Amino acid sequence: MDNKVRIGIIGATGYVGAELVRVLSRHKGFEISSLVSQSYAGKAFSEIYPAFRGLADMKCSPLDISAVADSCDVVVTALPHGVSSEVVPVLLDKGLRVLDHSGDFRYKNIGTYEKAYKLKHPVPELLSEAVYGLPELFRDQIAGARLVANPGCYPTCSILALMPLLKRGTIDPSSIIVSAASGITGAGRKADIAYNFCETSENFKAYSVTGHRHTSEIEEVLSMQTGTEIVLTFTPHLAPMMRGMLATIYADIYSGAGLAEIRAAYDDDYKNEFFVRFLPEGVIPETRNVSNSNFADISVFFDERTGRATILSAIDNLGKGASLQAVQALNIMFGFDESEGLI
Amino acid sequence: MDNKVRIGIIGATGYVGAELVRVLSRHKGFEISSLVSQSYAGKAFSEIYPAFRGLADMKCSPLDISAVADSCDVVVTALPHGVSSEVVPVLLDKGLRVLDHSGDFRYKNIGTYEKAYKLKHPVPELLSEAVYGLPELFRDQIAGARLVANPGCYPTCSILALMPLLKRGTIDPSSIIVSAASGITGAGRKADIAYNFCETSENFKAYSVTGHRHTSEIEEVLSMQTGTEIVLTFTPHLAPMMRGMLATIYADIYSGAGLAEIRAAYDDDYKNEFFVRFLPEGVIPETRNVSNSNFADISVFFDERTGRATILSAIDNLGKGASLQAVQALNIMFGFDESEGLI
Amino acid sequence: MDNKVRIGIIGATGYVGAELVRVLSRHKGFEISSLVSQSYAGKAFSEIYPAFRGLADMKCSPLDISAVADSCDVVVTALPHGVSSEVVPVLLDKGLRVLDHSGDFRYKNIGTYEKAYKLKHPVPELLSEAVYGLPELFRDQIAGARLVANPGCYPTCSILALMPLLKRGTIDPSSIIVSAASGITGAGRKADIAYNFCETSENFKAYSVTGHRHTSEIEEVLSMQTGTEIVLTFTPHLAPMMRGMLATIYADIYSGAGLAEIRAAYDDDYKNEFFVRFLPEGVIPETRNVSNSNFADISVFFDERTGRATILSAIDNLGKGASLQAVQALNIMFGFDESEGLI
Amino acid sequence: MDNKVRIGIIGATGYVGAELVRVLSRHKGFEISSLVSQSYAGKAFSEIYPAFRGLADMKCSPLDISAVADSCDVVVTALPHGVSSEVVPVLLDKGLRVLDHSGDFRYKNIGTYEKAYKLKHPVPELLSEAVYGLPELFRDQIAGARLVANPGCYPTCSILALMPLLKRGTIDPSSIIVSAASGITGAGRKADIAYNFCETSENFKAYSVTGHRHTSEIEEVLSMQTGTEIVLTFTPHLAPMMRGMLATIYADIYSGAGLAEIRAAYDDDYKNEFFVRFLPEGVIPETRNVSNSNFADISVFFDERTGRATILSAIDNLGKGASLQAVQALNIMFGFDESEGLI
Repeated sequence: MDNKVRIGIIGATGYVGAELVRVLSRHKGFEISSLVSQSYAGKAFSEIYPAFRGLADMKCSPLDISAVADSCDVVVTALPHGVSSEVVPVLLDKGLRVLDHSGDFRYKNIGTYEKAYKLKHPVPELLSEAVYGLPELFRDQIAGARLVANPGCYPTCSILALMPLLKRGTIDPSSIIVSAASGITGAGRKADIAYNFCETSENFKAYSVTGHRHTSEIEEVLSMQTGTEIVLTFTPHLAPMMRGMLATIYADIYSGAGLAEIRAAYDDDYKNEFFVRFLPEGVIPETRNVSNSNFADISVFFDERTGRATILSAIDNLGKGASLQAVQALNIMFGFDESEGLI
Repeated sequence: MDNKVRIGIIGATGYVGAELVRVLSRHKGFEISSLVSQSYAGKAFSEIYPAFRGLADMKCSPLDISAVADSCDVVVTALPHGVSSEVVPVLLDKGLRVLDHSGDFRYKNIGTYEKAYKLKHPVPELLSEAVYGLPELFRDQIAGARLVANPGCYPTCSILALMPLLKRGTIDPSSIIVSAASGITGAGRKADIAYNFCETSENFKAYSVTGHRHTSEIEEVLSMQTGTEIVLTFTPHLAPMMRGMLATIYADIYSGAGLAEIRAAYDDDYKNEFFVRFLPEGVIPETRNVSNSNFADISVFFDERTGRATILSAIDNLGKGASLQAVQALNIMFGFDESEGLI
Repeated sequence: MDNKVRIGIIGATGYVGAELVRVLSRHKGFEISSLVSQSYAGKAFSEIYPAFRGLADMKCSPLDISAVADSCDVVVTALPHGVSSEVVPVLLDKGLRVLDHSGDFRYKNIGTYEKAYKLKHPVPELLSEAVYGLPELFRDQIAGARLVANPGCYPTCSILALMPLLKRGTIDPSSIIVSAASGITGAGRKADIAYNFCETSENFKAYSVTGHRHTSEIEEVLSMQTGTEIVLTFTPHLAPMMRGMLATIYADIYSGAGLAEIRAAYDDDYKNEFFVRFLPEGVIPETRNVSNSNFADISVFFDERTGRATILSAIDNLGKGASLQAVQALNIMFGFDESEGLI
Repeated sequence: MDNKVRIGIIGATGYVGAELVRVLSRHKGFEISSLVSQSYAGKAFSEIYPAFRGLADMKCSPLDISAVADSCDVVVTALPHGVSSEVVPVLLDKGLRVLDHSGDFRYKNIGTYEKAYKLKHPVPELLSEAVYGLPELFRDQIAGARLVANPGCYPTCSILALMPLLKRGTIDPSSIIVSAASGITGAGRKADIAYNFCETSENFKAYSVTGHRHTSEIEEVLSMQTGTEIVLTFTPHLAPMMRGMLATIYADIYSGAGLAEIRAAYDDDYKNEFFVRFLPEGVIPETRNVSNSNFADISVFFDERTGRATILSAIDNLGKGASLQAVQALNIMFGFDESEGLI
């Protein structure tokens, strides 16, 4: 026990926090030393999530940075954007390493962030230091990072699906359309009629059409990785299920490339990536196959009639799309096996 | 009672048939005079669907064309493709009018049908006579038709959403992408593990990627109505709900058109269509709002950054997508108010 | 139109109100002349429930008793208990007839009400006048009533199931146990994390164990109807579905009675009741069979080994359990066919 | 790897088998050495359950007892009743230890089994040897057993809830009523319209009223453990969810006992049982809190008005109700920590 890395979770009682507690409470290398929740301070974690009775009975504390600094080696912040940017710098100043779940440290271009989030960033100087926590793209930087920004769920799903073709110049960047659907945990744990069972069950709808913040996150990462400015269409949908995310992505193939070449790009990029499963030809991803896991299942189809590829990418929005990807990054940061606690 | 139009339903015990029974059994103008089911012949309809106890206790009969001809003025066939094309001609020969739910009479181009359905059509000469039963496009022809082919659910949803822009030349026909999701009744009522609760609940997936039959139906109708050959991308998905269908459609706007002009096209075309509700600017369709109804809710968004429109179109796959649209067509065929029995 | 009974709904935007609007907006005998909602005053009903666009676009008004009195012949109040008892007397004073959905006028024994609802009743003198709106028991009184108290959902379901045996003395009153489950609309439409999709989906639980208010309502009605004081056990459960209610009721059969005699009681009592369907021997009620309807499906089993009967009673909690039973009572109050608007 | 216990699963591709694969494939002490499936022989396990791609890609074999005997130290049989009783004796003869999931070895009284299962038992002599695999009651016998019969889900849930009061004589054995609900995985993985999403979603119903086989299993275990013949009422229900089981149990308290005494019985019996969580006073079990776990959450209420206790007991029907309880027993059989692989 004494050799374990002491980890704190600030914002422990949302769905992202609870999933972190589930995995970290049985992780060989980490020991949860602090659970911070403003709303539930003083309550045992297992009172809020009774599934954890006997497994995680630690009391939640109010936010006290000094106490956190004393008891932790690393902190995961699962806070709203705008709050993270206030709290994270103080944690870093105390010498802690931080993995942040908000959008506050995911951007390199301050203008893009401020436009998407309609906020003035208090510590723009940290943006260049922060590492985008997608291990398949930034594994080496994550390893030594002081501050990791956990990617958004839609960006994770979309970037993994697009990078192999985009970086090889196989697809027309101006043709990209991401039509994606998420389970309802994606909306967070809050009292809002819109997410009541009776309002969401037996319902499928788009939301934030043409205006979702993750558009800018996907565009920025893809643009930086390819050196081309990418502008794309992204439409999120809400599906009547708790967990799961599927991106159905359309892109025009520059003439010449056939399915074999297209598939080879994914095979090459992901053959050594345990958590990205590029599926055999013709096999279609389903969200239930990645549920409660850190896997991303990807498949690609090509329609010669239209010259368009259809790329399908499934993750668990709380898994590879949030908490489990965070644990993957934490494993890298602290030198554990990358899948420790995740299978 | 004696002045009512006598109607028979062949294939009465699938989900489409049951929905027809629900509406027609309380319709002022029709009297159900025959329910045909091979699988359940001899059983009361309400034994198969106990919800109908006291409402529709008529016994199902095996298929006997002469008996049907004697007892009916019009017949709705809800049979598999390939079976309809055998049964419908005989019904017509007996002097009956027919509304058919299968794909067998939806095409004008026999080659397209035979390629999509992998079947030789036994009565291709009927294709030119059959009227595609989408009232918003073919109201006049439906009125006098002997044979109406009820449109597919995805085609209904997609064609209503695309026609206003396509016929005005506002969008680039080669850029059209239809990404759509359906509830599970769309798969029909059959014993198949794939549609078990435990296989479909908490799951979202695409299916028939690049190869769904409805692609050719959408393309043929749009091509004929616009005089241009339309080739498009269509991806159906399965959502964990019983009913509902949403098409999210992407198309490039020819430069010059702005949102006002785009919206005006829909306003003009649908201002007098009771069952197509073009929503106010910014309002997003949801499948639950059209559930158990014959409405199609349509909305359009324009992203100036990409020059692309996102059109959203929601129907109930068993409503406007099947049985209720059939009743709308039947109302037209027999001179009833078009919304009779449907509100 | 001018001959229709003008009806107002106060508390129109909850689930009970919306279901009333759905049925009354197409009812031959009633015309909705007022929709009152404090939370949504000034908004069109179809903005709150977009499914009603084109069907019920009337604006909601704030509560103005004089305006209601001027525009209505009868008012349905769908208000919280404690609020109804303030509003209803004023409506009656204005000469209106009232059907109330709360618990405020369901009791004859003021002490029982005040204990169950932990409220002082402001107009106890109205309790003796109010008629309990269960048509199968109180049809004649409902016809002439000025004030009808619509029964609770669990009481409707339980009383219909128990009365045939209880009034004949076939079962031991002290042995009655009602174990029932409801869909989530039963909790009302409110912002509460407890009813979020992600908290209720994939979950089944009991609630208010040994302390639910409907216990006293069931007991009072059964006691008064049988002249014996009935004390019983009632446990409600929440099932992961929007609508539907099933009561599974256990009672000891006084020795001597066999299944034939037991079944005869139900056959006799319900053979002329259109909305109570006593099922054939061995057939088990399912909530989906009564969904969106005013039916109660009842079945009874007898286990000779234990001498105990198991009575199953299924309703739609918003149908026979609330809004549709209200319409049944309204039909009786105004001399319409009892099933008008309900099939 | 070489020191691990080699385990085979016969009937690996049902829901029980899949859950066993999930847990055993990452268990420190066991190594899956054989997966037998008649329906899917030759296919990789991960082709049938794509969630397991990369985690359990072993091929399924047809049943070959000698091959199983050569490759395994212990076998779990997840076969239909009547098949297990043919296969298990042969496995035992080969020197293997066996944990069986069917009803074939759960009874001591051959007559009870043959009546409940309507089968002649081929090896009744094994019934006395077989140990009922409920660790909380039979831990010591399980440790040394050659043949363990994994309990049914409803019996597990009910017996754990009833034993503390029954063995102390606190409740009247003739008054016991078990009203329970299960998720749909309880019906197994099979092609049957009755379990389709569209037939089970938005539905709650009882089934096998007065005639479910588990009645006899519960009665036999309780009778043997208490030395009194117990005859009780049991009604199973189907709830629209994949997993989870709740038993709501009613029993008359012999006068004298109050809630404190009642609760003390559970505290005493379960204070050292990790997998039985007796909840604090007033806390109500919910199936989601035990989902995907081996926990049983139990609570008890006492109504002084009726003198009746209401006992609530929640498990995951595939967890403590099947596969995870099996792993608990296997841990005991092979000397591992009882919670190994289960938290």
